[in-house]
Amino acid sequence: MKTLIVYAHPEPRSLNGSLKDVAVSTLEAAGHEVRVSDLYAMNWKAVVDAADFGGYATGPLRVVPSSGGAYDAGALTPDVTAEQEKLLWADTVILQFPMWWYTMPAILKGWVDRVFSFHFAYGVGVHDETRYGERFGEGTLLGRRAILSVTVGGPQSHYTDRGINGPIEDLLFPIHHGILYYPGMEVLPPFVLYGADRISGGEFEDAAKRWKERLLTLETTAPIAFRRQNSGDYEIPSLRLKEGLEAPGRAGFRLHVRD
Amino acid sequence: MKTLIVYAHPEPRSLNGSLKDVAVSTLEAAGHEVRVSDLYAMNWKAVVDAADFGGYATGPLRVVPSSGGAYDAGALTPDVTAEQEKLLWADTVILQFPMWWYTMPAILKGWVDRVFSFHFAYGVGVHDETRYGERFGEGTLLGRRAILSVTVGGPQSHYTDRGINGPIEDLLFPIHHGILYYPGMEVLPPFVLYGADRISGGEFEDAAKRWKERLLTLETTAPIAFRRQNSGDYEIPSLRLKEGLEAPGRAGFRLHVRD
Repeated sequence: MKTLIVYAHPEPRSLNGSLKDVAVSTLEAAGHEVRVSDLYAMNWKAVVDAADFGGYATGPLRVVPSSGGAYDAGALTPDVTAEQEKLLWADTVILQFPMWWYTMPAILKGWVDRVFSFHFAYGVGVHDETRYGERFGEGTLLGRRAILSVTVGGPQSHYTDRGINGPIEDLLFPIHHGILYYPGMEVLPPFVLYGADRISGGEFEDAAKRWKERLLTLETTAPIAFRRQNSGDYEIPSLRLKEGLEAPGRAGFRLHVRD
Repeated sequence: MKTLIVYAHPEPRSLNGSLKDVAVSTLEAAGHEVRVSDLYAMNWKAVVDAADFGGYATGPLRVVPSSGGAYDAGALTPDVTAEQEKLLWADTVILQFPMWWYTMPAILKGWVDRVFSFHFAYGVGVHDETRYGERFGEGTLLGRRAILSVTVGGPQSHYTDRGINGPIEDLLFPIHHGILYYPGMEVLPPFVLYGADRISGGEFEDAAKRWKERLLTLETTAPIAFRRQNSGDYEIPSLRLKEGLEAPGRAGFRLHVRD
């Protein structure tokens, strides 16, 4: 297994830093290759701007064609190109981050915004009567598996079916489905550590043990059964789920997961 | 009306720049005061790190207590303090941004991550048997209204009840409920412009007209009827919605909106 860990926390001695270290040591001890993108240590540039696209930046700046033009010409910046190469090298991708304001920290969002360029992560494949590009089950990153490892400040009950924040699987759906599954990766159920602001040493040991078990079964864990876009489940080009396919009572994001 | 527009696009001549300009001119022509935080023009620092907290950064860095300590001492950085003052000055807040990967661009997420500090936007109020802090309907920004103005590349059908991306109201829920309603703001239904990558001049004129109508009714538009956390609808401290309160068939994020 070749694993890329994208890690987003400013403090190496944090819970997130410790979970990243657990992943590196566990996977390497099991004979796997591991690379880490430590976004804070890399001083990762979080913000998309014209400088990302060199001579391919349109004027006025239009992000999509500029991104695609620079990608096609091999002219994206070296930091972005290096991350795209790591994604192509990997067969497994772990995103390790604290949930801040119900999603990823800005530095990690900026990794997505810049690395997932046009013609690399989106704008791939043809559009015709049966296909709407290669995405949601197809795409550049097909054949790879991804998993989120997320720390959450609040307790689990706040993130359950009736919890005030909404169910954790719905909060993570835009990342799972919209960022990871979109360019072709299979997505495993997340590893979520609740109560992260008040964790004791013994609780950390328990969490590390559970995380190790997940790490050692990444190759055999069943992914979330998202529906493939071009499988016949959706009308083209409206991309609405065809009537009658859903399980009774299922709505919203959950329509897009098979039974 | 005193309106703060937080605007996140790198190109002034973009659709987002034009919608921001429409908002400024429309509101000022109607006699309102407007301030704009143009995050790209301000070269906004998107990434939370120890430098945000000066001498109040704990070692090892723990973001929550460092943020609260610096806020309490008036020692947050001047850029963050200025944004907090603008939020307190405003009675209406507009976030103008393109949807990138199903949420806000990194620069705007970094505005939230840094400006919404501990003791300002969260960690406010007491916890007891009937109250779990002041949030979701109470908090520092109570009495203000907020609205998202979002451009989306894809067509509307992809974002409807059965659309492959999920319903737009669910994609925006973590921002509406988790970022804007959390510190006390009422949230108006969003202004969403679909097909933004392929819009014609005539279509823009139509959109600008619809946006002007929304801008001129910000004071009278009914907000999204999110449930108040401390209103009796939730068990304390599990913060699970009490049984029997929901409309039939409603689940997930929509449980937290009253009928």
